[in-house]
Amino acid sequence: MRNETRPINVRLSDDNLAVIILDQTALPASTTFIELEGEQDMFEAIVMLKVRGAPAIGIFAAFCYAVLANGTHTDNNKVFAEEAKRFKAHLESARPTAVNLAWALNRMEAVVLANGDTPVAAIKEALITEAIKIQQEDMRMCESIARHGLPLLNDGDGVLTHCNAGPLATSIYGTALGPVILARQSGMAVRVFADETRPLLQGARITSYELTREGVDVTLICDNMVSAVMKNGWINACFVGCDRIAANGDAANKIGTSGVAILAKHYKIPFYVLGPSNTIDPDCETGDGITIELRDPNEIKQMFFTKPVAPDSVNCYNPAFDVTDHTLISGIVTEYGILRPPYSESIAALKDYITKKIYQTRRISS
Amino acid sequence: MRNETRPINVRLSDDNLAVIILDQTALPASTTFIELEGEQDMFEAIVMLKVRGAPAIGIFAAFCYAVLANGTHTDNNKVFAEEAKRFKAHLESARPTAVNLAWALNRMEAVVLANGDTPVAAIKEALITEAIKIQQEDMRMCESIARHGLPLLNDGDGVLTHCNAGPLATSIYGTALGPVILARQSGMAVRVFADETRPLLQGARITSYELTREGVDVTLICDNMVSAVMKNGWINACFVGCDRIAANGDAANKIGTSGVAILAKHYKIPFYVLGPSNTIDPDCETGDGITIELRDPNEIKQMFFTKPVAPDSVNCYNPAFDVTDHTLISGIVTEYGILRPPYSESIAALKDYITKKIYQTRRISS
Repeated sequence: MRNETRPINVRLSDDNLAVIILDQTALPASTTFIELEGEQDMFEAIVMLKVRGAPAIGIFAAFCYAVLANGTHTDNNKVFAEEAKRFKAHLESARPTAVNLAWALNRMEAVVLANGDTPVAAIKEALITEAIKIQQEDMRMCESIARHGLPLLNDGDGVLTHCNAGPLATSIYGTALGPVILARQSGMAVRVFADETRPLLQGARITSYELTREGVDVTLICDNMVSAVMKNGWINACFVGCDRIAANGDAANKIGTSGVAILAKHYKIPFYVLGPSNTIDPDCETGDGITIELRDPNEIKQMFFTKPVAPDSVNCYNPAFDVTDHTLISGIVTEYGILRPPYSESIAALKDYITKKIYQTRRISS
Repeated sequence: MRNETRPINVRLSDDNLAVIILDQTALPASTTFIELEGEQDMFEAIVMLKVRGAPAIGIFAAFCYAVLANGTHTDNNKVFAEEAKRFKAHLESARPTAVNLAWALNRMEAVVLANGDTPVAAIKEALITEAIKIQQEDMRMCESIARHGLPLLNDGDGVLTHCNAGPLATSIYGTALGPVILARQSGMAVRVFADETRPLLQGARITSYELTREGVDVTLICDNMVSAVMKNGWINACFVGCDRIAANGDAANKIGTSGVAILAKHYKIPFYVLGPSNTIDPDCETGDGITIELRDPNEIKQMFFTKPVAPDSVNCYNPAFDVTDHTLISGIVTEYGILRPPYSESIAALKDYITKKIYQTRRISS
């Protein structure tokens, strides 16, 4: 299979023996692609945020699963499945919060489980096909999210976004940035305020890089300037991505998101969460059930793990995510449309719709 | 005049020809004292935040005024006053937001204006005395603020603070950190969460350094983690400093303070502003009248003006301060006690009290 039509930030090598990613930690200084062949390198690429953004992590993990499966040296289905189970668990442990990582790996595993008698070589082929399908679905989902989100914007609007939920966090368009990029493509004037997003500065390094590239008017601010720009009257809407949405609408996203939502409520600005429907975790009743990843204190105490910016002995608390209460969310934009409160009802209805649709599709194709 | 009894972070050299400061931009990596003799170096020390914190800037400016006056080569009162007027205007233009800079320089100028016929050499002596008096008053004010703030704390409390309003921002104790340091000295267990305070990381570099030195349990967080730690139930009160307080209680402080206040209101946590009464500007009716300093975008786009962390072409908005609405403030702790809402009344009453006290003092001493 050729790579020409595949998006560039996460893709398979031509020989299907490696996953190639744009190293997001090197942005904006350099656009560096790295080729990952081994399980440990793949694991570390997720931990070190070389690949990041909930949907992109899912796509990457699916490709990793396919490549690692491809590299196994057995014709025995049971041995093959055992080995796949092992590296799946390892990859899945890289980051606990985003649902997409586990979701994509479960989808890949389902191919193995559904084909217990199929020759291993054929399963390997099917896994590559499944990973590519996951990525192609993500592309369609992102485009749908962008189209559903577009009517939330008016010409001349100011949009605040936090962290990065743009093309590099997904496949194309992104989630939170999709409507903005579409708006720009359709000639609307939209001004984006991008939170730099400490400690790893995804907003500074990635969002402002992507939006500049797309020709969108973007102004970078520090996270603590959100209240000031809202008070100035510059923000008409907040658009953020999400890593996991509970059944009641509570949404986990990059640390700081809940603060933005509270400020938006105070200044009477609508606050939208944008993400594919697979970000909704029906097994998770409320945000309290979402595990929050705690990261290395040196992300805060040292500037990019080099220059110290705080005394070495000081304690740090470094959660990677926080949970935004559903009462603060004006709408959840998915590829199926915009969910509105009460979310326990709109989310249940959507999940019901998706289940029936999958059932119908299966019936038609069977 | 000897220096032994003078606090170390801002002081006169023994020969009164220089102002010696602890270079706060070098913290926490090194404790470096620099000696400033020339007007331009003094001006730049304020602009570059080598000396920072509203009260400390006021004290520093007073010493600069005394040193520059000392360095003039004239016996002519009119020429002397003209020269002083010129360098006063220059120093005053270094930072527009904090009231203390202008306040201290006005006090120094008042000595010159009140002594039009006094020999210039005697005025120079009087200026040195006045600058030292300003610093000694600040020490007493800080101690009073700490004592008035202490009852707001209970054993085991968690306190959130933003930026740095500790000893280095003033003379001793600081303003916002005063009650915490006093609490620690009196054996209470108080845990402080310090916002790192982007872009210049005064919380990481200075607050966590000072509190660690004082033996206070301090946990450093990024500015965008405030909502998360409040939601965790770890914060019982917010203590922040201030750079200018309007007659209605609106308070300008380091950028991000207003966001903390809004989050505190959301989570029903009391939010206190601590500062000496000279931070209240009666000529300023509301926060709308406070000029907000905009600083170099490269403070955000480059990490300490070296490594780029955002595309060079991206716009930045970099206000150094924001204004916290008086409706969000639970109390303003001054050296005279705690002002409570409605602030237009409590502030007017305090100003009235201070004016009468000064008048009485003058009558007694005359």
